Amino acid sequence: MNNLLVLIQCKDSVGLVTNITRVLAQHQLNIIAMREFVDEVEQKFFTRIECSGIVENHSSLKLELLNNLPAAADVYLVPKAEKNIALLVTKEFHCLADILVRATFKTLGANVKCIIGNHEILKEFAEKFDIPFFFVSHEDKSKADFENEIASVLSNYQLDYIVLAKFMRILSPDFIAQYSNKIINIHHSFLPAFIGANPYKQAFERGVKIIGATAHFVTNNLDEGPIISQQTIHVNHTLDAKQMAVAGREIEKAVLSKALEQVLEDRVFVSGNKTIVFE
Amino acid sequence: MNNLLVLIQCKDSVGLVTNITRVLAQHQLNIIAMREFVDEVEQKFFTRIECSGIVENHSSLKLELLNNLPAAADVYLVPKAEKNIALLVTKEFHCLADILVRATFKTLGANVKCIIGNHEILKEFAEKFDIPFFFVSHEDKSKADFENEIASVLSNYQLDYIVLAKFMRILSPDFIAQYSNKIINIHHSFLPAFIGANPYKQAFERGVKIIGATAHFVTNNLDEGPIISQQTIHVNHTLDAKQMAVAGREIEKAVLSKALEQVLEDRVFVSGNKTIVFE
Amino acid sequence: MNNLLVLIQCKDSVGLVTNITRVLAQHQLNIIAMREFVDEVEQKFFTRIECSGIVENHSSLKLELLNNLPAAADVYLVPKAEKNIALLVTKEFHCLADILVRATFKTLGANVKCIIGNHEILKEFAEKFDIPFFFVSHEDKSKADFENEIASVLSNYQLDYIVLAKFMRILSPDFIAQYSNKIINIHHSFLPAFIGANPYKQAFERGVKIIGATAHFVTNNLDEGPIISQQTIHVNHTLDAKQMAVAGREIEKAVLSKALEQVLEDRVFVSGNKTIVFE
Amino acid sequence: MNNLLVLIQCKDSVGLVTNITRVLAQHQLNIIAMREFVDEVEQKFFTRIECSGIVENHSSLKLELLNNLPAAADVYLVPKAEKNIALLVTKEFHCLADILVRATFKTLGANVKCIIGNHEILKEFAEKFDIPFFFVSHEDKSKADFENEIASVLSNYQLDYIVLAKFMRILSPDFIAQYSNKIINIHHSFLPAFIGANPYKQAFERGVKIIGATAHFVTNNLDEGPIISQQTIHVNHTLDAKQMAVAGREIEKAVLSKALEQVLEDRVFVSGNKTIVFE
Repeated sequence: MNNLLVLIQCKDSVGLVTNITRVLAQHQLNIIAMREFVDEVEQKFFTRIECSGIVENHSSLKLELLNNLPAAADVYLVPKAEKNIALLVTKEFHCLADILVRATFKTLGANVKCIIGNHEILKEFAEKFDIPFFFVSHEDKSKADFENEIASVLSNYQLDYIVLAKFMRILSPDFIAQYSNKIINIHHSFLPAFIGANPYKQAFERGVKIIGATAHFVTNNLDEGPIISQQTIHVNHTLDAKQMAVAGREIEKAVLSKALEQVLEDRVFVSGNKTIVFE
Repeated sequence: MNNLLVLIQCKDSVGLVTNITRVLAQHQLNIIAMREFVDEVEQKFFTRIECSGIVENHSSLKLELLNNLPAAADVYLVPKAEKNIALLVTKEFHCLADILVRATFKTLGANVKCIIGNHEILKEFAEKFDIPFFFVSHEDKSKADFENEIASVLSNYQLDYIVLAKFMRILSPDFIAQYSNKIINIHHSFLPAFIGANPYKQAFERGVKIIGATAHFVTNNLDEGPIISQQTIHVNHTLDAKQMAVAGREIEKAVLSKALEQVLEDRVFVSGNKTIVFE
Repeated sequence: MNNLLVLIQCKDSVGLVTNITRVLAQHQLNIIAMREFVDEVEQKFFTRIECSGIVENHSSLKLELLNNLPAAADVYLVPKAEKNIALLVTKEFHCLADILVRATFKTLGANVKCIIGNHEILKEFAEKFDIPFFFVSHEDKSKADFENEIASVLSNYQLDYIVLAKFMRILSPDFIAQYSNKIINIHHSFLPAFIGANPYKQAFERGVKIIGATAHFVTNNLDEGPIISQQTIHVNHTLDAKQMAVAGREIEKAVLSKALEQVLEDRVFVSGNKTIVFE
Repeated sequence: MNNLLVLIQCKDSVGLVTNITRVLAQHQLNIIAMREFVDEVEQKFFTRIECSGIVENHSSLKLELLNNLPAAADVYLVPKAEKNIALLVTKEFHCLADILVRATFKTLGANVKCIIGNHEILKEFAEKFDIPFFFVSHEDKSKADFENEIASVLSNYQLDYIVLAKFMRILSPDFIAQYSNKIINIHHSFLPAFIGANPYKQAFERGVKIIGATAHFVTNNLDEGPIISQQTIHVNHTLDAKQMAVAGREIEKAVLSKALEQVLEDRVFVSGNKTIVFE
């Protein structure tokens, strides 16, 4: 199979689909699946096109597409190369394990290049899967030093995404700025409810009947980045905060996996503080 | 059938279930279904017991139960009488219609005695069902006057519950205090997210992937009362705020109906700012 | 707004999207939303395109599209006219009521032209909504006579769809053949489980932990037509068959409404014994 | 904590709860949580009672309970000992991995004593977790010989349950009879739909809009045993049979884990071909 994946976002205008598909047809590319969306508020156009066919010269195809699109269009021909990710963890195993199992059986859609933990507790488990685990403690050092150590480890790898798989430290705007739209977090509530620390304790105290989990890109504001995926489950009066946390694990790992699948298959566009997800 | 429903809440202590069931057995009452819950934080005990048998004297049974329970216990022998409710509405039809249809076909578990609308738009619809509709405008008068008019209408009926079926005015603490734990509201978000006005607009702007609805008892603080039932549905980037509102109607009416069913079957205890729901 | 909705299904081939969008562009039609699907097993192509613009001559646009498509393509330019439906019912109110309420408040997307019941029990309710109700008993007559009477009533209306809203009689192949892909049924199980009579009784006896509902087009084989929409809810050991039926009502009406919405918005293609639903 | 878990099932009669709770009170046992259910069709009573307190002599407590219950009652005082399970697998990793991860982090509620695979493909993975893996091929031997080899491995362990974690061979009635109500299977459909082989292929060909998974006890009839837990997810026309299988993995592992949790916490009673699950 010689499939090509084309992602485009640009200012909306008349005839975009015709222009794009004509260029693809001229290159003998056949459209297998095409999704598009127009954000009418922002007047923006997004499309994800899977084609079959052989493209000798990606640069010239890209140039031709740009010539047929409004100024400042963003055209991305997704390379064939496998994607690489790093995982940041603290103490909880469930998201980490879920990702490592998928990676082991080649169903993740990415290679896990390394794991960084600010506790050592998951090191032994990670090593079962032959993934390098780096213990970077946050104790007895400044946040800047802590983050520099993390960045130093990450710099050894060509990474497409950094996944906070229940990493319980807040990263600084400076750190985040280095990886714009490349850091994915799982938050243990249905945002925007229960922002910040101890969401299950907050949920218990409020007496909610549903709890949730949210996977989102990380931006400067805590738990405020573009949401990729969310899920909820029913709870009742018999669960205390700790039991809610146990029940919540199941959706945390499910939501994070779903979000990773969508991101790694290049189905997610970020637009302002929102995402467009072509499922 | 001579079923009796017994609701008890009291301070927790050793032997409560034994004491209660012994008293019931002495009255030749057979337990059909029994649910109990101990709130270990608050040290409170709750039970809901369905019995079969004939009780000549409710007062003496109640007294005997109280004699076998800790001080300040709350014992409630649910009377056979049908429950009565009033509905407060504004412009939206979906919750009102769902309740009226159930009432018409005797599946609501209560009689709808009257409907009060601060707009007249639903009057014609309500009258199809032969329920008195009172138009009480909020315009050109103080909130106190507006609420006094409502209270005046309500005072003509023996009401068990007042249901805010998309009633878009905020009631004052004084009004609410007259109907403690008797007012049920449907809020069009998964509380505590998006408290207050325009939750769908808030949801759209935040770019959430789930929206929700919450049925709760009304207390002094807006959208802060004990939650009875909640439900969520998935949304995506293609829905604007208005389309989210349309999609949300389906769960608003479903959640309100579910909550009413639970309340009207005496399955819901209020404890502080939470509910215990014996489903 | 001068929106045009174009539905096309044809044999799959290279360049279809380009050809179609080029024709639309030549007519100054701008694509607002486009969905397409290729059934690779059947080698069939399906698309649903919403355009904005003014088309003077629908026939010539259709002809031009056909000229640019493989032989035997099916091109449908959806007319602006409101759709009309008829409802067939027996004794249960919940699906009927849900549809009538939506129709009353203009959120159904169709006019309900008439209701035919093989019992009279829902007549009074239907008449609240000023829809003609025809009582056509199935008793003391042959199935052919029964169906001829129904067909005779239906023939008085220009109908787009006939909705079996809990109509508990099995229609003959002859009757169904008159309304190919135009009859929509709600079956009270998650097909293909529990085909036929008394699905809740079957579900109770099997001890399932979920029950479901299925909306489908009606074909010759009982409960075997193309599925449009399905939904399930959790049940447990405390529900008997009758209580399952009560719980099931909620999803029956929700699934039927969802299916009707999708059909009435021309989002559903039938292909063999399956549907393609562009949500 | 000195908690005691008491499970009772017997013929229903008047005063059972009183009798049982009186005996527990006489032993200074305080009831923490009690669930009961009366199967009115079968006239059977089931209860699960968590008590706190110290019981010197389990046998005498049990005897006393039996003396206060109808003839042929089944009283079970759950021992404190950790439960042990064995896993049977074929080629698919997802259920196996989910269980092993939980066992590793002590959240499964049981020890995995051994894994038996009729293929060798999962051996390397299993050994990461230091659980003995036995390869017992089904090839070139009779079913009786195959099952005898499995039974021989199992006989080395004191096992509470045998979990078929995507074990794709059908076990004989003789084998199953040795482990009555002790074998738990995950079936990759919402039973009773799509019994037998290739349920996802069946689901694809039927064009369903939901797929499901079912965890059940194994009895003589294929896929016919008492259902413990079920779950469904939505699918659409874009998924072929293989993609449905991939999507189905997520609920297969979730349902099996949920069922195991319920069984291992002694929340599940088997009654005829059904289960009572006290959640």
